[in-house]
Amino acid sequence: MTEAEFIAALRQLPLHPAARGLDDDTALLDAGPLVVTTDTLVEGMHFLPTDPAHDVAWKLVATNLSDLAAKGANPEGILLNYPLGDDAWDRAFLEGLADVLTKFNTRIIGGDTVTLPPNAPRILTVTAFGSDAAAPARGGAKAGDALYVTGTIGDAGAGLAIALGKDGSLELLAAYRRPQPRLADGRILAPHVHAMMDVSDGLLIDAARMARASGVAVAIDLARIPLSAAYRAFSGDRLAAATAGDDYQLLFAAPQDFVTDATPVGTFSAGFGLTLHDSGKPVPLPSSLGYEHAPRG
Amino acid sequence: MTEAEFIAALRQLPLHPAARGLDDDTALLDAGPLVVTTDTLVEGMHFLPTDPAHDVAWKLVATNLSDLAAKGANPEGILLNYPLGDDAWDRAFLEGLADVLTKFNTRIIGGDTVTLPPNAPRILTVTAFGSDAAAPARGGAKAGDALYVTGTIGDAGAGLAIALGKDGSLELLAAYRRPQPRLADGRILAPHVHAMMDVSDGLLIDAARMARASGVAVAIDLARIPLSAAYRAFSGDRLAAATAGDDYQLLFAAPQDFVTDATPVGTFSAGFGLTLHDSGKPVPLPSSLGYEHAPRG
Repeated sequence: MTEAEFIAALRQLPLHPAARGLDDDTALLDAGPLVVTTDTLVEGMHFLPTDPAHDVAWKLVATNLSDLAAKGANPEGILLNYPLGDDAWDRAFLEGLADVLTKFNTRIIGGDTVTLPPNAPRILTVTAFGSDAAAPARGGAKAGDALYVTGTIGDAGAGLAIALGKDGSLELLAAYRRPQPRLADGRILAPHVHAMMDVSDGLLIDAARMARASGVAVAIDLARIPLSAAYRAFSGDRLAAATAGDDYQLLFAAPQDFVTDATPVGTFSAGFGLTLHDSGKPVPLPSSLGYEHAPRG
Repeated sequence: MTEAEFIAALRQLPLHPAARGLDDDTALLDAGPLVVTTDTLVEGMHFLPTDPAHDVAWKLVATNLSDLAAKGANPEGILLNYPLGDDAWDRAFLEGLADVLTKFNTRIIGGDTVTLPPNAPRILTVTAFGSDAAAPARGGAKAGDALYVTGTIGDAGAGLAIALGKDGSLELLAAYRRPQPRLADGRILAPHVHAMMDVSDGLLIDAARMARASGVAVAIDLARIPLSAAYRAFSGDRLAAATAGDDYQLLFAAPQDFVTDATPVGTFSAGFGLTLHDSGKPVPLPSSLGYEHAPRG
């Protein structure tokens, strides 16, 4: 598509008033204090060349909304930096974009389109804005807090293996390709928890980051890591689940007696570092705690 | 550099309080109504593989600040989406980033780093935030207004030709590699003009865009287009100057008797479209009015 065609298509999507109809180089955002987050997805690194464009659009927006969810924010809208490609891909991308914006009640604020040199991998960026956020920091966990996680862990990691050719359920594939940001949970949790972040790179690595930012140690009980029935049928490997990325669940620190549907998976204590056990029996740390910007495709 | 090394280096640059020390996935921005703009630069399209990393950093930030200048905004800070590469390039980029942030009193708010597949062109995105903007729209020009432009036009286009191997002055090369956003001019002009935008894709194409957004016609006098002494020495070609991109001057509509240092280069009238003349003598429109997302490297 040409830039003009693409922008005309964007104008058919929900537009934020700040976008001023996408007629300007800038947006004018007047929504009180804002939570701002940005994520870039690279073809061959964060998504596979074979992933449908529709799902890439979904994932690009959903990963950003997941960061807003972890701050308890209400999504205001997004900026999109998009490399124009072939028509079919662009159209499928726009369909996925419409789906994810509608599903999570989010709007277009602005963006930029570019043309890439031939054979360059697609690189897409979304910047998301949220309002009305309690915005717990990553570094607020206290010694004595429990570490909780929403939903189930490991589904997206299994979904990636399935996208790469392994046998497995469509449910797991969908967890990888169409993550669901926990916006409603984030709104409820954010005012009450001590620290919160989303699980994007893997439960272990993200828990270690929360502990480090908070100046405390964390011990994680592998036996408590919540697995879906689909994941149990796929492999049930808890260590693999805890080190796979792309879960987009919420990870938070709160008192031991905190009332929540989320699962307690660990405890914070004075000190520093991460330890792992299985119902009390020590487990050595794996060589990789999660995803750290190395190729995965 | 690794992501951790790069973020550690960013922490040595001026940080916006919203960045919360770059310890979180999100920034918290509380600065009243905000002007937001984002630009992506692609290696081989918007900059040359041979352009120094130092200058790429400058240009990436400066092009975004130029959009803020056109709204009369005060720069608050930037988000940076950066592909980690080889150490020498990353370090030179960080030096250029420090220079441009310091020069224009701008700060880091946050961002994202990614790793690219081997041999992928670099793609860099900056999103800039400005506050306290009068924010004239692009579409406010009125029939009877004059069209004005700050500074001189065509220098960066000549600089690109020089970067590609032509003989010419370092001054012109600097205009291409180190554009100077007209932030101070924008602050002064924005509350008083009817419409304003920056000249990023070429004077003719950007003037046509302003006229279209405003629902009026514009006639441009080639003879009035302001050229630098360096550009006159290089070629002095006014049509080439008016269709080259990367000027990052401010283009604005204001009454004919508006008092300004900027140069009146045209007039708006009822109707639609763009016409060109040379001191009253009609000039046919060139086949390209400016840069429209086609390869240029």
